Amino acid sequence: MDQFERRIAQARGDMPADLVLRGGQVFDLVTGAMIGGDVAICGDRIVGIGASYEAERIIDVTGLTLVPGFIDTHLHVESSLVTPFEFDRCVTPRGVTTAICDPHEIANVIGLDGIRYFQAASEHLLMDLRVQLSSCVPSTDMETSGAEILADDIARVMGHPSAIGLAEFMNYPGVIHRDPAAMDKLRLFEGGHIDGHCPQLSGRDLNAYIAAGIRTEHEATTADEALEKLRKGMRVLIREGSVSKDLDALQPILTPATSAYLCLCTDDRNPLDIGEHGHLDYMIRRLISLGTEPLAAYRAASLSAAEAFGLKDRGLIAPGLRADIVAIDSLEGCNAQLVLTAGRVVDDAAFAARGHVAPVARQSVKAPQVAAQDFRYTGNRTETPVIGILEGKIITEHLTIDIDPQDGDKRPDPARDLMRIAVIERHGRNGNIATGFVKGFGIARGAIASTVCHDHHNIAVVGADYADMALAANRLSEIEGGFVVALNGQIIAELPLPVAGLMSLESFEDVRDRLVVLRDAARSLDVTLEEPFLQLAFLALPVIPALKITDRGMVDVTKFEIIAR
Amino acid sequence: MDQFERRIAQARGDMPADLVLRGGQVFDLVTGAMIGGDVAICGDRIVGIGASYEAERIIDVTGLTLVPGFIDTHLHVESSLVTPFEFDRCVTPRGVTTAICDPHEIANVIGLDGIRYFQAASEHLLMDLRVQLSSCVPSTDMETSGAEILADDIARVMGHPSAIGLAEFMNYPGVIHRDPAAMDKLRLFEGGHIDGHCPQLSGRDLNAYIAAGIRTEHEATTADEALEKLRKGMRVLIREGSVSKDLDALQPILTPATSAYLCLCTDDRNPLDIGEHGHLDYMIRRLISLGTEPLAAYRAASLSAAEAFGLKDRGLIAPGLRADIVAIDSLEGCNAQLVLTAGRVVDDAAFAARGHVAPVARQSVKAPQVAAQDFRYTGNRTETPVIGILEGKIITEHLTIDIDPQDGDKRPDPARDLMRIAVIERHGRNGNIATGFVKGFGIARGAIASTVCHDHHNIAVVGADYADMALAANRLSEIEGGFVVALNGQIIAELPLPVAGLMSLESFEDVRDRLVVLRDAARSLDVTLEEPFLQLAFLALPVIPALKITDRGMVDVTKFEIIAR
Repeated sequence: MDQFERRIAQARGDMPADLVLRGGQVFDLVTGAMIGGDVAICGDRIVGIGASYEAERIIDVTGLTLVPGFIDTHLHVESSLVTPFEFDRCVTPRGVTTAICDPHEIANVIGLDGIRYFQAASEHLLMDLRVQLSSCVPSTDMETSGAEILADDIARVMGHPSAIGLAEFMNYPGVIHRDPAAMDKLRLFEGGHIDGHCPQLSGRDLNAYIAAGIRTEHEATTADEALEKLRKGMRVLIREGSVSKDLDALQPILTPATSAYLCLCTDDRNPLDIGEHGHLDYMIRRLISLGTEPLAAYRAASLSAAEAFGLKDRGLIAPGLRADIVAIDSLEGCNAQLVLTAGRVVDDAAFAARGHVAPVARQSVKAPQVAAQDFRYTGNRTETPVIGILEGKIITEHLTIDIDPQDGDKRPDPARDLMRIAVIERHGRNGNIATGFVKGFGIARGAIASTVCHDHHNIAVVGADYADMALAANRLSEIEGGFVVALNGQIIAELPLPVAGLMSLESFEDVRDRLVVLRDAARSLDVTLEEPFLQLAFLALPVIPALKITDRGMVDVTKFEIIAR
Repeated sequence: MDQFERRIAQARGDMPADLVLRGGQVFDLVTGAMIGGDVAICGDRIVGIGASYEAERIIDVTGLTLVPGFIDTHLHVESSLVTPFEFDRCVTPRGVTTAICDPHEIANVIGLDGIRYFQAASEHLLMDLRVQLSSCVPSTDMETSGAEILADDIARVMGHPSAIGLAEFMNYPGVIHRDPAAMDKLRLFEGGHIDGHCPQLSGRDLNAYIAAGIRTEHEATTADEALEKLRKGMRVLIREGSVSKDLDALQPILTPATSAYLCLCTDDRNPLDIGEHGHLDYMIRRLISLGTEPLAAYRAASLSAAEAFGLKDRGLIAPGLRADIVAIDSLEGCNAQLVLTAGRVVDDAAFAARGHVAPVARQSVKAPQVAAQDFRYTGNRTETPVIGILEGKIITEHLTIDIDPQDGDKRPDPARDLMRIAVIERHGRNGNIATGFVKGFGIARGAIASTVCHDHHNIAVVGADYADMALAANRLSEIEGGFVVALNGQIIAELPLPVAGLMSLESFEDVRDRLVVLRDAARSLDVTLEEPFLQLAFLALPVIPALKITDRGMVDVTKFEIIAR
């Protein structure tokens, strides 16, 4: 009897099920009912609920509530700072059984080989990692990346079973102004799934963006923005990353009536945050604590996500669907006691039994050696553009502040929290160095530097002292990239990220511990931001308003142009 | 500029839209909001809402509410008694812009050529007729049909653009008992869409049916039955046909919270009913009058239907989607004042401009000549199985009534409303004649006969007088099938249906008028049923419980076997 017929036979009770979960209650995400009885599993599929079954193996889940495995609808695994294998080990035990990722961080460093690395890894994980195909590498033509991906390149990696469509189309000006390269990529996926990214787009511009066939979007930061996107047919992905925190603002629009059209995502979340707060489990808890009905919260976390991305084989605990199941203590607690992915129990043995894929993108940091004077900001005009940080957001304010040059250099001014920021090209292509001002770090001395610098992942440095900035940047070349804190001529903390300058070779626990040390080191510079390295990482992303900086200079995102000095 | 770029340009207002609807309000089915502003259309797509647009053509819809075109999720066009072209002309002006049909009526008469006829017709209609591929022709092996369709046959018609999956899998015993021919058909559509039909199936049997990959179902007649199906992951299609009327029973489960998982369908609805009450527009009116929130009713009528069947290009009035739009007087009234399908205004000129496909399946009635004595029901046992009609339902009661034979024949007994029913094979294959008893017509004299006799479409006759029954049956051979009423040796009314014995060559208005005459003629026989011909048509369908009759005899549907005489 083949697997198809075995499913029918086991569902009907004509033969024992492979596995039964007994004693729990299934939380039904369609009607909100609690359903008693066994959950029968045949191979990788659920075959029966709400009835008694005999089975080869029985797991007692007495007192637990069974919900469908959570689906993270948009994230960059690279932002977890660990490899896909460690990401799997970090979040699958929390109930995340499907993650829809965009590998554009690594793709900006090494191109298609980065996408292929994630595709290969997806074949060995316990979670179902769906690898969307990166649409905007680089995100714009105002930055220098390590690789460029065009429509023809994307076509070469479309066939992999993990593919789920075109990843977040960040170049929204390119869409609405019909840039030829953007049109080519969109046409390649016409009728398929195209994920979006269009912060603050509205009115006819938003109509044009959606008319291009873009269906899902995660950049809404206010309820009004989310409502306009929903009303125009987009599925809105509520995001709660380590930096971008939109959950509280969007929570009021998530109701049982709207929840079929809303999903959850983390976008960028690091192991420290995951360890201290959680992942999608944290989002669910937080939503319910804010008053969201559990039906709406859990539906957004699985059923609606499956629908939004056309994953017809999951999203409910129901016959015929993938056995992706989370046994939790309570709907409010959302603490996973047992997780099944495609019928497999998630435990240390299952992680140990996974296949392996060797990391790629070693020795990727090819930056010039820099010196203190490289961080000067020359110019005669007093009026100076300053990036205004909004804590917990990746959008920034475009400030204009009077800063007088001294000896032809506009220097950092800790008294006004006006710090030097610099981006150094590190892909070995042109050695560009751009400098500017940022307000909001609270940094009073030393420097912090990073190769996690969206999306081109050049070197970003912020500091009060040029010598420490040079020290920190040069250290990154020595350790193949990562995070560095420098003070008074010393490196006082660092986290090497030798895989593309983005991911560690260590365990997520090690990375989490190193992040605690880094955070403390940053605080010793008087940094006031909760997540200084993550916040820094987004200051170089010129597809998020309003003012950013790349290796080519300060970018007015609203005008989509580099500001002339 | 190609059409893809024109859409983006028109959406943004960079060039005038092809068409604008001005002055109305869009009812948003995601949030329930009313959205003012123009609706801009480029070719067959909506490109903009909620903004002002210039346009080549403007239609004033002041005072009207705009809703997405309705989607009938399951119906048999043949049950409208007219060709697909007349069906289009009959229901599209009521706002039905997509209909998902199963051509299994004509397929039971002439096989694949019947499916191909509908596929060809779909290329010329104003509505988008989606032709599912008939899974159960014949519905069981307890009947004689004109053709048989196996998995290999289905594979030959899968490539047509109208195809949307496998049509209602009525042979539910074949699924759960793993009949090899059923397994072959299901495997052919594994991972795709398979529509269901499993009246009163429950518990582990229902689990097994759903575990086979069946996703949608329209046979729930009670709220409890619908809730079990919903909780097990099926999308439930609420049906209101001319005979099967489930709307009132299922209305309470349709709420804003559940509406994303519920759809509407008519299954079988004739032009008289459509003329007197309406089609999906009637269902929407009725739901709202019963207290359903308009958001839930309209969502089920379009957005949820599009989702359930994977029609990602429709279901909302939103940029990028098909311009299938209904302008109605009010949400409660649901009277279509203007209908657009794929951007075309539905009017007489548009109907006249359609292409044409010649009808098929002429001269399909090849029944033996019958005589009065052929309708005798012999037997010695007094206990007699009697089909108990439930008005407005296609399920029947399995009654057992004492009937004494007279001269070796159990004769009709008008005093107890016990009437003769007979089914005569008419495909020229074996000339079978089966007789039995039915209770519930109220017929006191004469006979009615029909070639619309699900799904094998043999001749069904009900009467109090054997001679009139023979007269009526023989008349059907002369007129190539249809409906006939005979009384006292005369044909007193008839409707020829020469296309497969199922569809008229006349307009829907003519058919509607003839049905009024037929209904009056039936009443002159004291028939008490509102729809005697439709009710008769389902008495021969052995996949609907509990007692039915085919050309091979009375069928105990619960046991799935022919009753021995």
